[in-house]
Amino acid sequence: MTSSSAASLHNPYFSQNSGQKDIWSLINETAAAAQAESGKPIVNLGQGFFSYSPPDFAIQAVNQTIEKAQFNQYAHARGNPNLLNQLAKLYTEELGRDVSTDNLQITTGANEGIFSIFFGFLTGGDEVIVFEPFFDQYIPNIEMTGAKVKYVELKYPSKFDSQNVSGDDWEVDWEGLENSISDKTKIIVINTPHNPIGKVFNEEELTRIGQLAIKHNIILVSDEVYENLYYLPKFPRPANLPNLPELAERTLTVGSAGKSFAATGWRVGWVHGPKDLIPYVTAAHTRICFSTPAPLQQSVAEAFVKASTNNYFETVRKQYLKKYEIFQLVFDDLGLPYTTAQGGYFLLVNFAKLKLPDDYQYPPEILSRKTNDFKLAYWLIKEIGVVGIPPTEFLTTEKRIDLQFVKMIMF
Amino acid sequence: MTSSSAASLHNPYFSQNSGQKDIWSLINETAAAAQAESGKPIVNLGQGFFSYSPPDFAIQAVNQTIEKAQFNQYAHARGNPNLLNQLAKLYTEELGRDVSTDNLQITTGANEGIFSIFFGFLTGGDEVIVFEPFFDQYIPNIEMTGAKVKYVELKYPSKFDSQNVSGDDWEVDWEGLENSISDKTKIIVINTPHNPIGKVFNEEELTRIGQLAIKHNIILVSDEVYENLYYLPKFPRPANLPNLPELAERTLTVGSAGKSFAATGWRVGWVHGPKDLIPYVTAAHTRICFSTPAPLQQSVAEAFVKASTNNYFETVRKQYLKKYEIFQLVFDDLGLPYTTAQGGYFLLVNFAKLKLPDDYQYPPEILSRKTNDFKLAYWLIKEIGVVGIPPTEFLTTEKRIDLQFVKMIMF
Repeated sequence: MTSSSAASLHNPYFSQNSGQKDIWSLINETAAAAQAESGKPIVNLGQGFFSYSPPDFAIQAVNQTIEKAQFNQYAHARGNPNLLNQLAKLYTEELGRDVSTDNLQITTGANEGIFSIFFGFLTGGDEVIVFEPFFDQYIPNIEMTGAKVKYVELKYPSKFDSQNVSGDDWEVDWEGLENSISDKTKIIVINTPHNPIGKVFNEEELTRIGQLAIKHNIILVSDEVYENLYYLPKFPRPANLPNLPELAERTLTVGSAGKSFAATGWRVGWVHGPKDLIPYVTAAHTRICFSTPAPLQQSVAEAFVKASTNNYFETVRKQYLKKYEIFQLVFDDLGLPYTTAQGGYFLLVNFAKLKLPDDYQYPPEILSRKTNDFKLAYWLIKEIGVVGIPPTEFLTTEKRIDLQFVKMIMF
Repeated sequence: MTSSSAASLHNPYFSQNSGQKDIWSLINETAAAAQAESGKPIVNLGQGFFSYSPPDFAIQAVNQTIEKAQFNQYAHARGNPNLLNQLAKLYTEELGRDVSTDNLQITTGANEGIFSIFFGFLTGGDEVIVFEPFFDQYIPNIEMTGAKVKYVELKYPSKFDSQNVSGDDWEVDWEGLENSISDKTKIIVINTPHNPIGKVFNEEELTRIGQLAIKHNIILVSDEVYENLYYLPKFPRPANLPNLPELAERTLTVGSAGKSFAATGWRVGWVHGPKDLIPYVTAAHTRICFSTPAPLQQSVAEAFVKASTNNYFETVRKQYLKKYEIFQLVFDDLGLPYTTAQGGYFLLVNFAKLKLPDDYQYPPEILSRKTNDFKLAYWLIKEIGVVGIPPTEFLTTEKRIDLQFVKMIMF
């Protein structure tokens, strides 16, 4: 017996793409090599995380919290009571109805929150509807429960080839959505503001999706991790639709302290939703992570108290809007169309206009990906000195081949 | 449609015991009520976490780390490089062979480490052998992958009814173990030092288990979260067996910063093992939690540097041994036998001698548990003022009924 026979015992689900470098490593290493080779600085718009610290008041909260014995030991599986209370208060204001701690579960980042929802509700044979493009983690997180993903398109707006579009132009394939629903459908997942499009689902879209969810007894999972980074006058939420209030009874909403306080490394997220659904999220979370980092939960609770007195979220939103203005100018100058962001901190830029030279030389690890966006990203790094993220991971295989847009992250 | 029909969509796995209070809440609330009622102080030996802070040097590490931008953002999915390097150094010394960062995966607590191992290797129909009594989280963590648990007894030593025993007296049911192995067996799980027995598996036991694992191509998962709290001259590890070195090629070992630095709320753990097995743990972890809290990973890395210069682990071990001496005296005085702890921070105390009054009145939530240990724990709280944890959760249903021992936690 050799150890290779022990390795042969692995879950076959994880053998896909084994040995292939993950997208972030590939792109960042390519950028580093290009910079070393050319000696010119590279503008990295592919990093995906904040290059600056959380606000001072959040850092100070950690310094104070860590000195207290109780915040260094296990938090309750449901979550730190102070954080639960703060979130209850916040969403009571946001949703305009009484939200109690029974409507909440703290999770170890939004990612584990979504995974806990899936595990709380899905078993083998169930089906989940996901809009394409999608945030890449949804797919394995659904499939690991034994459930199956059904993809419905956010339809590529053809005018995007030559002009700027808005999130509203990326329309739901309504016929596809209705056809995808079966008696096995348990969950529809939306992401608003949407990564990577930057689309905020409007009230009309949410209502149509919600009506289908109600009609077919489906749970709506609303991934709202960018809830504090929206650039429209109002952020519509499925948990709070004026003309379809009953949708709240079947909506589980996911939030993120990492995104809200520029602290992606803290891994504090939450799920809010109806009291009769939350216990299943709690049950799954208790088994997956048991509890969420205690000192960081308490620090987030204190940061929320502070943010409510210093207008933090409104200030950040205004700063981001200004940054977007400058960011978009770059692509206006280049004559490259983008999807105007309604939320988030990224921009989807269309390079269809750009004809990559036919005889351009790509390294094997770029060619092996077989999709156009990797070539495009490589060319941009080498020739322009700008790093963008190929959106391959946000699409199913058959949609990947001719990709002509690249996701640019704002910092 | 009502929201109750949305709730009906839940994963049926999580409907078991729904509505039943978890064991920690039940026992702690009973203790609080008893204290309020009697006005006498209650000695809580059931809490399960440290009532004091991590060492000063670990707290200081957090204060310094949190000021640096990069440690507030996503860590790499594999783990913070400084922590990986520290652990590689530590296990190179411990195991007496070269351990590199390729042998390591940082996880969000040991719990998520074990869950990631199970997901990295198990699929529906696979079987896992677990020794009973077992740490309760193993069971759902295995079953959530679709795999099945086979239980093998650590045999209750009959002399424990009347006298102190050691971990060695809790013998593996060797016949049961051999009979439990099938061609579906992928993993054997051991926990050493063992919770709740306090047993450290000796070299002979590890060798016999290891030989079976090698013979049948099974992976050995060694949960060693109490690796720094052992009270024998030496702590034998399956990843380092002098007479069976090849066992290391199929052993995945789990460690915990929470247990090692009295910081259970930090949720930093790790898995070490062969280079060809770790990638599957990484793949699962990346999907489950994506990455582990960045500031706390860096702080643990710095705490390990400090601990290597100030003899921290040896000092703590000596302190715990002294505490055990005092702790055991209580039960010596009461004439109650216990299992002498070879590791951990708890004591399994046998109350078989104690005859609970037949006409004693128990509240419905105690009676509804149907196992003797809940009555025992209740009686101890009410009549003696001592809180212990009923070990029900560590046993399968059929083994629970006549439980006569209670787990006492040292602080």
